[in-house]
Amino acid sequence: MPQKIIALLHPGEMGAALGACLVGCGHRVLWASEGRSAASLTRAAAAGIEDAGSLARAVDAADLVLSVCPPHGALDLAEEVAACGFDGLYLDANAIAPDTTREVGAIITAAKARFVDGGIIGPPPVKAGVTRLYLCGAQAKEVAELFAGSHTDASVLAGPIGAASALKVCYAAWNKGSIALLATIRTLAQIEGVDAALLAEWAVSQPDLARRSESITTQSRKAWRWIAEMDEIAASFEAADLPPGFHQAAGEIYRCLDTFKDAAATPSMEAITRSIGRGVRK
Amino acid sequence: MPQKIIALLHPGEMGAALGACLVGCGHRVLWASEGRSAASLTRAAAAGIEDAGSLARAVDAADLVLSVCPPHGALDLAEEVAACGFDGLYLDANAIAPDTTREVGAIITAAKARFVDGGIIGPPPVKAGVTRLYLCGAQAKEVAELFAGSHTDASVLAGPIGAASALKVCYAAWNKGSIALLATIRTLAQIEGVDAALLAEWAVSQPDLARRSESITTQSRKAWRWIAEMDEIAASFEAADLPPGFHQAAGEIYRCLDTFKDAAATPSMEAITRSIGRGVRK
Repeated sequence: MPQKIIALLHPGEMGAALGACLVGCGHRVLWASEGRSAASLTRAAAAGIEDAGSLARAVDAADLVLSVCPPHGALDLAEEVAACGFDGLYLDANAIAPDTTREVGAIITAAKARFVDGGIIGPPPVKAGVTRLYLCGAQAKEVAELFAGSHTDASVLAGPIGAASALKVCYAAWNKGSIALLATIRTLAQIEGVDAALLAEWAVSQPDLARRSESITTQSRKAWRWIAEMDEIAASFEAADLPPGFHQAAGEIYRCLDTFKDAAATPSMEAITRSIGRGVRK
Repeated sequence: MPQKIIALLHPGEMGAALGACLVGCGHRVLWASEGRSAASLTRAAAAGIEDAGSLARAVDAADLVLSVCPPHGALDLAEEVAACGFDGLYLDANAIAPDTTREVGAIITAAKARFVDGGIIGPPPVKAGVTRLYLCGAQAKEVAELFAGSHTDASVLAGPIGAASALKVCYAAWNKGSIALLATIRTLAQIEGVDAALLAEWAVSQPDLARRSESITTQSRKAWRWIAEMDEIAASFEAADLPPGFHQAAGEIYRCLDTFKDAAATPSMEAITRSIGRGVRK
């Protein structure tokens, strides 16, 4: 298939790995260094992604804009791209609620561009077989083909715009919801003086839980961007007349941990429970 | 050790099994059939528990009162026993918040009886090695010894009154919280039309989750008594300045399922998600 030009906004860890996949498939991938961090610069260079300088120049040159950003940035980014007069294909692959996706889609189609909804499940695709990109919308197949043969398993999901986002929401609702729940339980156990007894009981009856409850230590550096994702998940539940409380609570927990964003080392479990115990109801 | 007389209030499934353990240890176990169901009568008879007729007569005869009831009944039961002028040993083994336990303890000690806090983890002890009874308070050892050699592994937990309840809360917060979360996610997936896609994705990356998400079908007959337990867990989190939302939401889910209390057969997953989807925000 002919080489495409793709504006990748922005090369975070996930974006850079997706960009590298597209470069590997023979496409030209551009980014916009203006206002971005040194870490993005390093990641983009390593992934073979070319710097177009500004967002406007990247978008002007692009057949496809690929939006991969923290969930709280998805709507603003769509507005920025629409304001550039973009009329190509726009893929939103962010962890947002189906309703938010439809809002993004409305912004994009009002600007005369075409819109594809994407949901990424798995880690950044730096090796094969671990990352799925689900796509829906009329041009889903066209987008999936761009990734053919790469480390990103892109596939078309039946359903209207919003389905790929809904699938991602359901998946993350468990993964990130259960991590927060376990971390909160460990904090309560600490506060009530029964943490050692809980670990001893789990060792007998739920042998995997001690380890799982401590996965928060390695995940805590991502807590800052999971806050808005929990808001999006809670909104998804609420829009379906289901209780949003699980993920509102999870969002509160991740808000207590956002200071671990640039932590030099993985914090201890004690540091996590101390932050949660101190931080939620300020 | 000398045989004790124990008033068991009341022989539900858990209570009857604990009663059978005590009978097996040589103790006399009494219950009060007044106002109880035919099912209780059958269970008590099968467990070798003697009918004292009224609660007052059972309590008058008893060295120990063992309170095992749905969480929403724990305080009222303590009031009833205190009103009988009971001055023996009172064990509350219910799934209640540490603060509720301390309230029960205050009622009991105001009546000049002595109080032990208990937390049961595991199913009714009808076989060995699966049910633990954690006990705390000054007479915890005395109570633990009553179960020596039975199917109930009774042990003393270090800590003040409330610690055994806290341990039970932390344990159930995961088990019952995670069942509710998974059931809600399956409901959202149904509503959004991505349930088959979610199951396919889980089959690849979380192979145990499909099965776990359907454990709600066999558990749904207990949902009616988990509603108040979720309230108690939420209150435990709130008292520790932690977010109560996980279990407030779980309580909403179990409230949708209380109609399965006397279900003749295990409902299908579809019946569960339909009830949740219809029932939460009435």
